[in-house]
Amino acid sequence: MSTNKKTIIMFSDDFDRAMASLIIANGAAAMGDEVTIFFTFWGLEILRKAKKVQTKGKSLLQKMFGMMMHKGTRKLGLSKMNFGGIGVRLMKVCMKKTGAMSLEELLTSAQEQGVKLVACTLTMDILGFRKEELLDGVEFMGVAGYLAVADEANVNLFI
Amino acid sequence: MSTNKKTIIMFSDDFDRAMASLIIANGAAAMGDEVTIFFTFWGLEILRKAKKVQTKGKSLLQKMFGMMMHKGTRKLGLSKMNFGGIGVRLMKVCMKKTGAMSLEELLTSAQEQGVKLVACTLTMDILGFRKEELLDGVEFMGVAGYLAVADEANVNLFI
Amino acid sequence: MSTNKKTIIMFSDDFDRAMASLIIANGAAAMGDEVTIFFTFWGLEILRKAKKVQTKGKSLLQKMFGMMMHKGTRKLGLSKMNFGGIGVRLMKVCMKKTGAMSLEELLTSAQEQGVKLVACTLTMDILGFRKEELLDGVEFMGVAGYLAVADEANVNLFI
Repeated sequence: MSTNKKTIIMFSDDFDRAMASLIIANGAAAMGDEVTIFFTFWGLEILRKAKKVQTKGKSLLQKMFGMMMHKGTRKLGLSKMNFGGIGVRLMKVCMKKTGAMSLEELLTSAQEQGVKLVACTLTMDILGFRKEELLDGVEFMGVAGYLAVADEANVNLFI
Repeated sequence: MSTNKKTIIMFSDDFDRAMASLIIANGAAAMGDEVTIFFTFWGLEILRKAKKVQTKGKSLLQKMFGMMMHKGTRKLGLSKMNFGGIGVRLMKVCMKKTGAMSLEELLTSAQEQGVKLVACTLTMDILGFRKEELLDGVEFMGVAGYLAVADEANVNLFI
Repeated sequence: MSTNKKTIIMFSDDFDRAMASLIIANGAAAMGDEVTIFFTFWGLEILRKAKKVQTKGKSLLQKMFGMMMHKGTRKLGLSKMNFGGIGVRLMKVCMKKTGAMSLEELLTSAQEQGVKLVACTLTMDILGFRKEELLDGVEFMGVAGYLAVADEANVNLFI
């Protein structure tokens, strides 16, 4: 069997951790691996569409979490030295000058290379996220789905 | 061999990370896996009894760490948007309304399903934690113990 | 095959996480495993020489990141309860009294036991770190290098 499987649980919404996650995913996919990124808790923010999507049936608290959590990759901050968004902007300038791919490009590239982007349905239930609020092409799984994939993978990371 | 093994190093004391850890552990145990959660550093707080336990022979510094570190699951906060405890309370309300299990229920369920809860003895030595301060049924291991289990597991996470 | 391989991605610059990482690495190496620690993003700080190294050709932003990021293990703080450096000092006192190895000793011991310390070249490019700023004996790899090692390892952690 020449194909290896990799899974990443993307728990955090830090810009730098999302970068790490997507660089590993893209690298592995380029080497022919089947990669699944399982977005859970704050990580779900990465999969949100940048524009507000009208939804029905959310509780007041779920609306509050929805409003306070970031919408998509462009709003994420660094886990350290973010200084209210200045840090992440400077990091992006450094990345651009080096010719490194942006987080958005890494996400698109991951999808194009067949990396499975999976949203955790339990988190969606708790925080009231709807499928239509997330990027097109995203799949949906619970913990059993994650474990089934992880059981067959040779690298499983929690980021 | 039909049984798979899983290990989780629970390093953090964030409520949300503890949730992730115990949801994965319970899910895997329900599927017949042998799961070991190795609680180390701040993660040890999750295993502490809620009530203060009288202990002898702690140094002043160890007493300080003991007082400042949380006692059990009910005191944990979110890794993001905790706002002095408001965030975690709102999260718990959302969880209850969705019918999701509470952290305490997940911990009890894990023990009932045979998930091994292991306290890191090195952290206990450094911070001066005594066995009687931790939940009943907890086991004790050093890094060699962890590695022996991880070597036989097919999924090993650091949370 | 009696030798197992282990990889750790050291993403963070927290003192406590660096401790966890190096304790696992030393433990595994002592048991005969081949261990590779891949230092990326903030984790690169752990590999920096304590003294400033003169470098050429850095952009202004790269110089800024270079100045603001820690130089070596002695400057790292705790991920929790650091209180501007007091927390980490008290932790070090507790460690010393218990006879636990210091972070510096763990790093030296890891190198002596043959643990491979690898610096992520992509992070170095983005933040402008030069090879001569990092400890002697450090190796250099990109994500493909990491994946090649991880594919052959039976424990892969992201810390």
